[in-house]
Amino acid sequence: MKKFMNGAATLAQECLEGFVAAHGDIVVFGEGRKHVRRRSLNPAKVAVISGGGAGHEPMHTGFVGHGMLDAACTGHVFTSPTPDQILAAIRETDSGAGALLIVKNYDGDVMNFEMAAEMAMAGGAHRIETVIVNDDIAVERSARGTGRRGVAGTLVVEKMIGTAAQAGAALEELKVLGDAVVSATRTMGVALKGTTVPQTTRETFVLGPNEMEVGVGIHGEPGRSRDDMTDASSIAALICGHILDDFGSLDGQSVLLFVNGLGATPLSELYLVFGLARAFFERHGVIIARSLVGTYVTSLDMAGVSITITVLDEHLTALWDAPVQTASLRW
Amino acid sequence: MKKFMNGAATLAQECLEGFVAAHGDIVVFGEGRKHVRRRSLNPAKVAVISGGGAGHEPMHTGFVGHGMLDAACTGHVFTSPTPDQILAAIRETDSGAGALLIVKNYDGDVMNFEMAAEMAMAGGAHRIETVIVNDDIAVERSARGTGRRGVAGTLVVEKMIGTAAQAGAALEELKVLGDAVVSATRTMGVALKGTTVPQTTRETFVLGPNEMEVGVGIHGEPGRSRDDMTDASSIAALICGHILDDFGSLDGQSVLLFVNGLGATPLSELYLVFGLARAFFERHGVIIARSLVGTYVTSLDMAGVSITITVLDEHLTALWDAPVQTASLRW
Repeated sequence: MKKFMNGAATLAQECLEGFVAAHGDIVVFGEGRKHVRRRSLNPAKVAVISGGGAGHEPMHTGFVGHGMLDAACTGHVFTSPTPDQILAAIRETDSGAGALLIVKNYDGDVMNFEMAAEMAMAGGAHRIETVIVNDDIAVERSARGTGRRGVAGTLVVEKMIGTAAQAGAALEELKVLGDAVVSATRTMGVALKGTTVPQTTRETFVLGPNEMEVGVGIHGEPGRSRDDMTDASSIAALICGHILDDFGSLDGQSVLLFVNGLGATPLSELYLVFGLARAFFERHGVIIARSLVGTYVTSLDMAGVSITITVLDEHLTALWDAPVQTASLRW
Repeated sequence: MKKFMNGAATLAQECLEGFVAAHGDIVVFGEGRKHVRRRSLNPAKVAVISGGGAGHEPMHTGFVGHGMLDAACTGHVFTSPTPDQILAAIRETDSGAGALLIVKNYDGDVMNFEMAAEMAMAGGAHRIETVIVNDDIAVERSARGTGRRGVAGTLVVEKMIGTAAQAGAALEELKVLGDAVVSATRTMGVALKGTTVPQTTRETFVLGPNEMEVGVGIHGEPGRSRDDMTDASSIAALICGHILDDFGSLDGQSVLLFVNGLGATPLSELYLVFGLARAFFERHGVIIARSLVGTYVTSLDMAGVSITITVLDEHLTALWDAPVQTASLRW
C-alpha cells in the first residue's frame, strides 16, 4: 500500500517532528531530537520511561504526559532505540527517585534497554528497575528462546505504572506492580492484511481474499496459523476463546477489555468486534468492568485487531480510572 | 479489502451497539436503538443534534457528550438517517430551549433533516434552526446543484456550537455562530486507496500503484483529479496550496490546522503530513494557533488524509479550547 512519506530513511524522524509540533503543550524533544519527554517534569517522582521501534504509533510517544510516561524513545521503523538514546532519556527525567523502564519483550529492545540501564547505574548515578511486557499469548511459553512478545497490553502496563508513579510510589513498588499487571494481562491478534514496510513498500505477508492470519504480532511477522476468513462473530469467539483458555478461567472475575486496532482497521469495525467480544466474555461469566476501544498499538498499516484482557482488582481499577493527560489517552 | 463484519445488512447497527456498550458512561440509546444521546441532559440548554450515514466513525456518535452534541442519528452505511429517527432525537433532547441541527451538505441529509424539522415545528412543539456544513473546497462553487460537501470541518462546527450551547447561548445565537464557523472553515482531501463498501466488498475507485485521487469526499466518490503519486511534501503543498487559494490570503491570521485520517491511514503518517502542512502554512505567514491530528471523519477504510483550516478569532479560540468530554474528543 502507498504511504504518505518523503523517503523510508527519514520517515520515523519526520513523524516524530510532526508529533512534537502538534503536542508542544505536553511534550518537548530531548537531547538530539531522538526522544520525547514531558514538558513539565516532577523531580520528586520516579521517572517512567518506555520506547521501541517506530511504526507502533501512537505508542509510545502518544502516552507521554501526566499519569503515564515521562519519556519515550523511538528507533527507526521496527528497530530498537539505541542505548545512548535511552540513557539520555534517563538522565533528563530521573532527578534521584530512580527510573522504571517498561520494555516490550523483543531481543533488541531488551538488550538495548539493559545496556542503557547498566550505563545509567554505573557509579551509582541512577537507580533503575525494568518491567518486561510479554502479553502475547500467540507465542507458546517455553523454557528456551525469547518467550512471549509484548503487544497491546503494554498500554495497560504504562497507564497503571504511570499513574502509580504520579501518586508517589517508590521504584521498588513500581517494579512489583508492573510485574503484577503483566501477569494479569493477555492479548491475541488477528490480521486481514499484512504490514507494508516503508523500505520495501511490500507487505510482510500476503493474504488471499479468503484468508486471515491468526496470532499476529506488531512487526508484520506472520501469526501462528493462516485460517479461512470468516464472520466477525466467529473471529471474536476464536480469539476470545484462546485468551480464556490461557487464563484457565475468568468466571466471576472483573476485567478490563481492550479492543485495539492494528493500524488500518476503521473504528467502526473495532466497535463491532468489541460488542461481540464483550458478549462472548459475559456468556462465560466474566464481568467487563472497564473497556477501551481504539487504535493505540499498531503495526504501521496492518489491517486487524487485537483483544486484550487485564484482570482487575480494586487497586488496579483505581489506577486505570485515575486521570491521564497524554496526546492519545485522556480522561 | 476484507472487513470484520457479520453481514452488510447488520454492520451499521452492530457497530452502534458496540459503541454504546463501550461508552455507557457517556451515552444511551434513544428510541428504537437508532440514535444515541447524552446520558445526562441539561433541560435548560439548546439541544445540539447531528447525524448522517454510518461509515464516518467516530463522527457523529463519538462526538456526543459534554461540550459537543446532545444526540447523533446514524443511518445505514453512507445513507441518511430517516426523518423519524431525527424527530425522535429532537423530542428526547429538546425541553423547550430549541434544537440546533448540524447537517452535512448532501441532498439526502439536507432533505431528511428538513422534513424532521418541519415535523418537529408543527403546532409550535419545537423551535428548530439548521446549520449546513459545506467545507469541501474540492467541489467548485456554483449557482446550480447541491454545492460544496460537508466533510472534516463538521467536527470543528460541532465542537464550537456544542461548547457555546453548553455555556447557555440561545438558539438564534447558535445559528449565527454556526454559519460563521462554516464560513471560516475549508477542507480538502486526498486518497491513496478507495473505500471498500460492505455491500459489494469492492473499492469504489481503484487506483494504480503510482496514482492518487485528489479532492476526494467521504463517501468513496472519486475526487476532482487523478494525479501521479508523489512524495508527502509535494502532496501537502498541493492540498495546502488549494486551501490557501480558496481563502485568498491568510497572511498574519491565526488558524486551527486539523489533519484528519480518512480511515486506513496510520497516525504516524498523519503526524508526518501535519508537520509538512504546518511548515507550509507558516512559510505563507499563517499562525498555527491550534492543531488537531487524528482519525475523526472517515470514509470506512479509505486510505488518505484531509486538511482543514478554520480561521480563528478570540471567541472561536475560546470555544475550541473549552473542555469537551465525548468518546472520541476529550480535553
